[in-house]
Amino acid sequence: MSGDTAIATVCLSGTLEDKLGAAAAAGFGGVEIFENDLIASRRSPSEIRRLCADLGLTIDLYQPFRDFEAVPPDVLRANLRRARRKFDLMAELGADTVLVCSSVSPDAVDDDDDLAAEQLRELAELAGERGIRVAYEALAWGRFVNTYEHAWRIVRRADHPALGVCLDSFHILSRRSDPRAIRTIPGEKIFFLQLADAPLLDMDVLHWSRHHRLFPGQGAFDLAAFTGHVLAAGYQGPLSLEVFNDVFRQADPGPAAVDAMRSLLALRESVGTLDVPAAPRLDGHAFAELGVSGAVLADLGFTHIGTHRSKPVQLWQQGAARLLVNSAAEEGSISALGLVSADPRGSARRAEALLAPVLPREHCPGEADLAAVAAPDGTEIFFCGNDEWLRDFVPSGASSAGSGITGIDHVALTQPFDHFDEATLFYRSVLGLSPEAVAEFAAPFGLVRSRAVGDQDVRLTLDSALVRRGEWAPGVPSPQHVAFACEDALAVARTLRENGAPLLEIPGNYYDDLDARFDLPFAAELRENSVLYDRDPSGEFLHFFTELVGSRVFFEVVQRIGGYRGCGVVNTPVYMTAHRERRLSLA
Amino acid sequence: MSGDTAIATVCLSGTLEDKLGAAAAAGFGGVEIFENDLIASRRSPSEIRRLCADLGLTIDLYQPFRDFEAVPPDVLRANLRRARRKFDLMAELGADTVLVCSSVSPDAVDDDDDLAAEQLRELAELAGERGIRVAYEALAWGRFVNTYEHAWRIVRRADHPALGVCLDSFHILSRRSDPRAIRTIPGEKIFFLQLADAPLLDMDVLHWSRHHRLFPGQGAFDLAAFTGHVLAAGYQGPLSLEVFNDVFRQADPGPAAVDAMRSLLALRESVGTLDVPAAPRLDGHAFAELGVSGAVLADLGFTHIGTHRSKPVQLWQQGAARLLVNSAAEEGSISALGLVSADPRGSARRAEALLAPVLPREHCPGEADLAAVAAPDGTEIFFCGNDEWLRDFVPSGASSAGSGITGIDHVALTQPFDHFDEATLFYRSVLGLSPEAVAEFAAPFGLVRSRAVGDQDVRLTLDSALVRRGEWAPGVPSPQHVAFACEDALAVARTLRENGAPLLEIPGNYYDDLDARFDLPFAAELRENSVLYDRDPSGEFLHFFTELVGSRVFFEVVQRIGGYRGCGVVNTPVYMTAHRERRLSLA
Repeated sequence: MSGDTAIATVCLSGTLEDKLGAAAAAGFGGVEIFENDLIASRRSPSEIRRLCADLGLTIDLYQPFRDFEAVPPDVLRANLRRARRKFDLMAELGADTVLVCSSVSPDAVDDDDDLAAEQLRELAELAGERGIRVAYEALAWGRFVNTYEHAWRIVRRADHPALGVCLDSFHILSRRSDPRAIRTIPGEKIFFLQLADAPLLDMDVLHWSRHHRLFPGQGAFDLAAFTGHVLAAGYQGPLSLEVFNDVFRQADPGPAAVDAMRSLLALRESVGTLDVPAAPRLDGHAFAELGVSGAVLADLGFTHIGTHRSKPVQLWQQGAARLLVNSAAEEGSISALGLVSADPRGSARRAEALLAPVLPREHCPGEADLAAVAAPDGTEIFFCGNDEWLRDFVPSGASSAGSGITGIDHVALTQPFDHFDEATLFYRSVLGLSPEAVAEFAAPFGLVRSRAVGDQDVRLTLDSALVRRGEWAPGVPSPQHVAFACEDALAVARTLRENGAPLLEIPGNYYDDLDARFDLPFAAELRENSVLYDRDPSGEFLHFFTELVGSRVFFEVVQRIGGYRGCGVVNTPVYMTAHRERRLSLA
Repeated sequence: MSGDTAIATVCLSGTLEDKLGAAAAAGFGGVEIFENDLIASRRSPSEIRRLCADLGLTIDLYQPFRDFEAVPPDVLRANLRRARRKFDLMAELGADTVLVCSSVSPDAVDDDDDLAAEQLRELAELAGERGIRVAYEALAWGRFVNTYEHAWRIVRRADHPALGVCLDSFHILSRRSDPRAIRTIPGEKIFFLQLADAPLLDMDVLHWSRHHRLFPGQGAFDLAAFTGHVLAAGYQGPLSLEVFNDVFRQADPGPAAVDAMRSLLALRESVGTLDVPAAPRLDGHAFAELGVSGAVLADLGFTHIGTHRSKPVQLWQQGAARLLVNSAAEEGSISALGLVSADPRGSARRAEALLAPVLPREHCPGEADLAAVAAPDGTEIFFCGNDEWLRDFVPSGASSAGSGITGIDHVALTQPFDHFDEATLFYRSVLGLSPEAVAEFAAPFGLVRSRAVGDQDVRLTLDSALVRRGEWAPGVPSPQHVAFACEDALAVARTLRENGAPLLEIPGNYYDDLDARFDLPFAAELRENSVLYDRDPSGEFLHFFTELVGSRVFFEVVQRIGGYRGCGVVNTPVYMTAHRERRLSLA
């Protein structure tokens, strides 16, 4: 009757044909068609049926009704008249399940379960004659019926084979309803399952639902547990996504559908209905590849230790921090990350199973064959095992004492506006990195959303302008950076300054405020060396920055003391402003 | 001590210097400096003081404190230490009023007014010695103190000359507090007044406040009444804007500051502290000027009745609808609107007083001297009195029966994302047009916000993509259109179809749904002629569309029956999709 996975057309942008094409290309087996999408289409229902068949999509749900039940007799008559028309349409469309949401209408006369059951029974009778099933769903903001338990009581009371419930994770989890009682509903009476995640927001639930839903794994709901209850009840239908999201609604539906499918694959893995190669342990950053000049790296104390045998790539190193300077890469950008995997092939197999685009491998005989995939923003992710790949570089024989940088602490990847939630899911599901909570802060040119993923071994930060950057905001796209670890930020800063490295100057006002807030013994040294400071309950954080060393890249050096977990986000507006002023002074 | 008007730096985008420059250019007399803006600045406080003096700005408020009062003794000691540092900084800055918001901290031990008063008194004593005043403000989400009455009780109890209250319209009106009791506070104890408007949103008040504040006149609060109470109490300080808004925060601060100043000028007018020439009555649309081909207008039944004596402009007319076809205008856009004013000079004087850019007048001797101003999106607005301007056109002598179009019903101006609220305020304050409620709907490529301004004589609709249009969405910038009035939409549609006008075909699915919803006697004719339908409690609405007749312009013909007030927004996704499909089929 349907594929294992479905997606509501309302999740995606474009015309109905755009949406169906994107869903099919991403591998969905079925769709829920939202009535407005069909109404606006030039294709008749039978043409849409044919198109779906050609695309390999079943039409698992049609959603034309609101405010059906518990109404006065004359309203019921009009509703049944409309239902007949819509059932005719569904026959043409080849859809056999209709969604009926609990009423929010002022026409709903009474909190009367008997009346609701009786009228839904009448609808089910009409539907059943035509081989159609009615799935009744409690909206979280339903006037009288707003919990799944209540919807199920009414369905049970109506007692008609063509009437069952539709469960929607958002409506249930947004109200903090306990989903465990789902297990008491007979599986064959769960006619449909709609899945949506969401961030925890303290707002009117209707607004929350209509604007802020996310694909599973992008938000804060425990959808694995929820879905587990539904499957344990014996539900046999598809896992179907119904996600109203302002951003997805206007994004290219192709990548959005892939993101959606990835969320379902990861969910199916977590409930045990899909085998995906497990995520091998990631042990650290092998390298970052970027398009900057080697001279800057030399100023930072890096040594050019090798040159690739067949590619225009230099290897620079200091401590465990390795940078690849690719003269063919886009100037100033971070084009690739190498991550140390306990099982590089396994990492690649998992990435591919979770729909990450596998990059073509180009290597000469005898060179390391590194598996690589593309992240949503196009950054190439290489999985490196041992240090075999280093043999592809002809050693330069050079060495130097370095400046005290010991490795890569994290890499900050600025995300395009539409890819923030997609990137979170990518790194979480494909690489197995845990996301931290989202932070929002006021940058000089607008609000920025920031989220760290990973842990002390592999840490990435994802930043994105919250609204967008308009024509006004300078520095679009925003710069990315590599943050190096060290054990004594003040000492490294002094050394680099002596080397003539282009360090970013931090204004005195920042240090005056630091003095007002804290009584730090090394306050004067921080000021003198333009080193910033933060603390949390478990430790301290010292960090400093270079100026922009390419059109969109700079470096940071950080020192972690104790168990400090963050990345000094509180200081971001300060260095962003300093970068901006520096650019203005150069312009 | 200060100008009449001030703006908080947090309202605007950019570095502190960007913000100060924009505020001064828009004519503000003072600023509130937000601490984070100062901390990130390379200029020392005394340099900022000098910059402000050079720009003619006073620094009316400094905002470095949170969570000061009602704390345990050790926290108080740290807070006082910090206060001393900040008072030193304020002396350097030349700011004499400090804002202290009611505590939201878990450190606040108790709902103890005596303790709060005692500690604030201690702070005021410290401040008073240095000639600084402490303005205490109740945050709407303050832990214990969250109403202005409560803040005033504590200030009264502390009874110190250097301690008063700060009133913020958002904190008071968002809680639906009754502002009338403000009149009972002695004016000299109201140390500061912060003004912000907001739309009525049902969400956590902190989130509402931090993201959705608006300038006065852009939202739903009655700021004239509120400000009236504060002035009646005897408040002598500036009217100061403190607006946290995600969009303004990332927009060009120049126009944003002008928008902000316009909001204060209109507010001062409404409370009677500023004389602005009153808005003369607008009696209708005189013309719309656009860059389309005359052939399309002929197909629509318009006649080319005249040619401008000195400009490359043709005048086309049908009924009372007049279009100017300007071969020098941007292809496909609506470049100007002519509005019939009872006093064109008065309209222009008001517009200028409210900071609308007055357009240079270019006319030959003997030609009409029309006053014109630029709307925020660049559309030129001409004020026309009688029909004198028509004499600038050499009559062609042509005439025709027309197709039944009788005039201009409304003009739909698509607004750039950052200018939606600014446009509302512009049309409301400058032209005196009343805004309707904002509607949001799901267009094929994302959510769209839509708002009508005006009435039956002059009606404009403002549409804007709610999030933005990304790389994906086609047809950027979105098309604009002129909607013509008629008395029989079906008859006009038939005539135009016979004329070969490029009418937009509406899919059959739309009419199948219309049949399911209504039982209309003229349903078949609607379908046959691609005429859409809507109704509201007071009337009905029939309308149809042309295809795009330029890169971003099309026409609509509407028929209003009874008292229908809207513009058929419910059908917008249908015609948007049809436009999109038509474009695809041409591509």
